[in-house]
Amino acid sequence: MPFSAEFRCIAGCHGAYPLDQVIYRCPSCGDLLEVVHDMAALRERSGDAWKALFAERWRSVDEPWGSGVWGKHEWVAPQLTAANIVSFGEGVTHLTRVPGYAGLGDVRVKQCGTSHSGSFKDLGMTVLVSMVKQMIARGQQIKAIACASTGDTSAALAAYAAAAGIRAVVILPRGKISTAQLVQPLAMGALVLAIDTDFDGCMHLVQELAAKEGVYLANSMNSLRLEGQKTVAIELAQQLHWDVPDWVIIPGGNLGNVSALGAGFEMLLALGLVTKRPRICVAQAAHAAPLHASYTRKWADLEPVKAKTTLASAIQIGNPVSFKKAVRALRAFDGVVEVATEAELADASARADRFGLFTDPHTGVALAALEKLAAVGEITKAERVVVISTASGLKFADFKVGYHEGTLGEVPAPKFRNVPVELPERYDAIRDALLRGLEN
Amino acid sequence: MPFSAEFRCIAGCHGAYPLDQVIYRCPSCGDLLEVVHDMAALRERSGDAWKALFAERWRSVDEPWGSGVWGKHEWVAPQLTAANIVSFGEGVTHLTRVPGYAGLGDVRVKQCGTSHSGSFKDLGMTVLVSMVKQMIARGQQIKAIACASTGDTSAALAAYAAAAGIRAVVILPRGKISTAQLVQPLAMGALVLAIDTDFDGCMHLVQELAAKEGVYLANSMNSLRLEGQKTVAIELAQQLHWDVPDWVIIPGGNLGNVSALGAGFEMLLALGLVTKRPRICVAQAAHAAPLHASYTRKWADLEPVKAKTTLASAIQIGNPVSFKKAVRALRAFDGVVEVATEAELADASARADRFGLFTDPHTGVALAALEKLAAVGEITKAERVVVISTASGLKFADFKVGYHEGTLGEVPAPKFRNVPVELPERYDAIRDALLRGLEN
Repeated sequence: MPFSAEFRCIAGCHGAYPLDQVIYRCPSCGDLLEVVHDMAALRERSGDAWKALFAERWRSVDEPWGSGVWGKHEWVAPQLTAANIVSFGEGVTHLTRVPGYAGLGDVRVKQCGTSHSGSFKDLGMTVLVSMVKQMIARGQQIKAIACASTGDTSAALAAYAAAAGIRAVVILPRGKISTAQLVQPLAMGALVLAIDTDFDGCMHLVQELAAKEGVYLANSMNSLRLEGQKTVAIELAQQLHWDVPDWVIIPGGNLGNVSALGAGFEMLLALGLVTKRPRICVAQAAHAAPLHASYTRKWADLEPVKAKTTLASAIQIGNPVSFKKAVRALRAFDGVVEVATEAELADASARADRFGLFTDPHTGVALAALEKLAAVGEITKAERVVVISTASGLKFADFKVGYHEGTLGEVPAPKFRNVPVELPERYDAIRDALLRGLEN
Repeated sequence: MPFSAEFRCIAGCHGAYPLDQVIYRCPSCGDLLEVVHDMAALRERSGDAWKALFAERWRSVDEPWGSGVWGKHEWVAPQLTAANIVSFGEGVTHLTRVPGYAGLGDVRVKQCGTSHSGSFKDLGMTVLVSMVKQMIARGQQIKAIACASTGDTSAALAAYAAAAGIRAVVILPRGKISTAQLVQPLAMGALVLAIDTDFDGCMHLVQELAAKEGVYLANSMNSLRLEGQKTVAIELAQQLHWDVPDWVIIPGGNLGNVSALGAGFEMLLALGLVTKRPRICVAQAAHAAPLHASYTRKWADLEPVKAKTTLASAIQIGNPVSFKKAVRALRAFDGVVEVATEAELADASARADRFGLFTDPHTGVALAALEKLAAVGEITKAERVVVISTASGLKFADFKVGYHEGTLGEVPAPKFRNVPVELPERYDAIRDALLRGLEN
């Protein structure tokens, strides 16, 4: 079957563009593009047939079909040929039960951070880099793939580009980023340019390089990445035997991930694999909550804010690129937006760790939102909740150390602080400390 | 079929002990125990039938059967009931191709560090903690599970114990371990006792607590853990369509992992799933290489050494617990032992990162060994090699930062150092730097 997909303007302008065209925004109105699939072709296969195909591919040992993204190839980027796919087996992450969290009956965490580069960005980057590999293989002149991010995006880009044999370029403000924050892209051989300017200046520069020098942009406005990220929705439905949870809670900054989540559930519904929608909650740090401001004013237009510093650094964004797409998804999914203070997100992260997780601060924001929705009865004990964990806690060891040492200024009284008990080498003292410790 | 397994002495003393008995060493001779399976019962099922069962479970979304360990339940701990299994979906990690590494034709890295707690220790800990859960459920008085480790073992123990609702206890020398090294077990609620003594003192204390206070020992002499770790061998054969690689390279310190690897391949052979043995190379840091010393003297008896500090901290062990088991495995698998200096391991780790990996220093040791064996023609281009990566590079960010900042004393001239290019905000300067950088 000739499946296909193309770029179209999200505002509805005329025009469609192939996915291997170098285009990031609508040439008519400048708004974002989205990937639109030929749904009629996809509908020729029944929902049950898709389920059978996806089950057969789930963790197949044949590359790349065992990837959570490429197991859904026809729904993601059907014109991409297998030979050009660059994969580290992304996706197929564990759905971990957290029994009794927030007094609820069925809470699970989708562990997207247990991934090659340590974050859910791998899901989108495998699509973008594979597409660029195909473009180069077919003769397009692309010298490198660039981004102006310094966090998970640059790590994922560097990994997939290295595997594809394409150079990655990371542009960032000089003197504002430590080696530690950059160590993944540096180790993986990215060309890192540190410029005497701020982040806005870097964004402009990377766009100028893209326009003039044959560099492909991997920024979050690139909607190829959302096609990979939407497989989170498909995966978690598959893991629940094609049931959908009552609620999905996801941390939100630039808001691409919630748009992708909505797009995944929409395809599942449209193609007959599931029969209901989950409700979606976007969780924002109170220090960077422009979507929450819109939500409380009945989805009023975006008013960009200056985001304040937050421990949840990846969502410290005051002017989210995917605001419109996110509002569209939230309206369709009876969505809500909740916020978490610094102390709330840190304590929620630490509370979840006591169940054997090791959560990053963004997952802490989502868990704090869950606690609040449970406390007011918006989410009830009979409901099944999935929390999307977007990154590995191992990327945030300083946050964890600061919490347990009690040195985070934002969290003066950590509720779940745990410190070593210091003891002399005397058996009775050690035994007493053991027995006392085990009582708590 | 009534599959079963029991503890027996590795030196061959009489006596067999159930896996839910609290016993760590042979009561007759004090040597280690190993888990021995009823192979006759396992042989009643054909090799093809086992392959079919393992393939079905590999793709399963049903807990705990989709776990790489519990998909092999009958081969691991058959008397453990599903209700007592504590799993985070461990195993089923990616086998990542590294094309052309060391000039070879087929090198793959088994990414055991892309796991719940970030290391291969999860594979063994799920077995140990599940067994203790079953022992408690059946009325045994066990107050907690303890270990004297501060690294990956304590992180894995804390995670699985927390999920099981069992307290974890970590005993360590006071003042010698930073919060950062302990942050996983602290975050996951382990009771951490910091004692005014050294590591040997901690080992004695934890054994005394186990003998007197009803604490179960999770130390590496506990052979339940090896039953989980041996699934690495089974998994990688399964990922290669039940072919086995020509070579498996694994970093070695306490040497439990190579024993487990050998045990896994032995079961595959004995039960007819594969028809040949790989050769095995244990890679040691030159600063902690007692196995290498034995190997170069035709497997002479162990002479414990005082291990020197190495970047590969988890294998900085001078008196390996599983020496005898490891030698037995290496003799059976035509094994070799290779060493890597600090500079060699760091450069090999960095070289592999340029392929899009982000390797920990222990994987660096294994990769350096691979380079040496390839350089002398011991491993040839026609051979398939699997390198076992034991931990996530994200646990070793300081090592990576030090390497690329050029501040590791042990590595004065890092070969793959990569640093940001600092630039003024002038388009022509940035364009020139880009084009120059892309030429390299």
